[in-house]
Amino acid sequence: MVRVLGIDPGTANTGYGVVARVGGRLAALDGGVIETKGGLPLEERLTRIHARVTELIAEHEPEAVALEDLYFGANASSALAVGHARGVVMLAAGQAGLPCAGYTPQQVKGAVCGSGRADKDQVARMVQALLTLADLPRPDHASDALAVAICHINRAPLALAMSGEAHRTPGMSPLAAAIAAAEARA
Amino acid sequence: MVRVLGIDPGTANTGYGVVARVGGRLAALDGGVIETKGGLPLEERLTRIHARVTELIAEHEPEAVALEDLYFGANASSALAVGHARGVVMLAAGQAGLPCAGYTPQQVKGAVCGSGRADKDQVARMVQALLTLADLPRPDHASDALAVAICHINRAPLALAMSGEAHRTPGMSPLAAAIAAAEARA
Repeated sequence: MVRVLGIDPGTANTGYGVVARVGGRLAALDGGVIETKGGLPLEERLTRIHARVTELIAEHEPEAVALEDLYFGANASSALAVGHARGVVMLAAGQAGLPCAGYTPQQVKGAVCGSGRADKDQVARMVQALLTLADLPRPDHASDALAVAICHINRAPLALAMSGEAHRTPGMSPLAAAIAAAEARA
Repeated sequence: MVRVLGIDPGTANTGYGVVARVGGRLAALDGGVIETKGGLPLEERLTRIHARVTELIAEHEPEAVALEDLYFGANASSALAVGHARGVVMLAAGQAGLPCAGYTPQQVKGAVCGSGRADKDQVARMVQALLTLADLPRPDHASDALAVAICHINRAPLALAMSGEAHRTPGMSPLAAAIAAAEARA
């Protein structure tokens, strides 16, 4: 089983999602949002984000942490704010000896929806289908975090090399098809 | 005695400087640069920066951490990189229960040199004079870190309120003059 912690970092809202892959199937083990109040000093907000990510790593023991990169066109001040949250998440990974990987929003959308221009609703619907969730993943930050974890599992060569068999399901997604194709080639 | 840890954050080079104020005098207790190798994964570089800042806080027990803000005109990708390092430094402060304060390079130069447009050499010379150092502080990142610590001591109302007496010295700097003037008013 391959397990990846996906993170959509932000100081106010950091989305997280843990995705496991057993054979050719993907499953969500956890997902949610770490919220911090705007009135708190930034150092306390970062302390809370770091502590929660450290807990998630201890609980789920993922093999890797996948993070959303900055979106294209971000300005310097929002990049700085994302960087603060991203830094403490990567630190939690580094302290646990886990490798980190970053993916642009376009890469994530491409891996999950087959198009880098998909909107948030399309991403949520594909995440729901890929993880066989009863409901649409909500809020958006949690959905995005699950999506980046899926993207990493899809792209990481190790994950593919470790895979056993492919399960073809009706209405196979672009990702599942890609996984099945890779497995067929292996 | 007031003690402040000043930080000039960066993933490759994070400058640090510890400045103490006893009465009206300033002194450097420590200063240097935390260097991390470019070949290391970012999560390991951030782990090293966080560990060293945590050590510096334990060793010097500062009352506050002062950080350089982003320079005006930084682009998004350099802002993200500075944010990573800045985030783990603020985390180390938050974990120790210390408040953080940020100052723009212009504010730091204004507090230390009397002009927001001073160059790096002018800053280094003023830091040398204010801290009565035998040599110019080097490298630039350490000098900048000492400067932001001085800026915080100069600006923080608590530091001024806690001060006792002013020691006038020949060739008094703009900062020392400002401190002395504030103390005379108190």
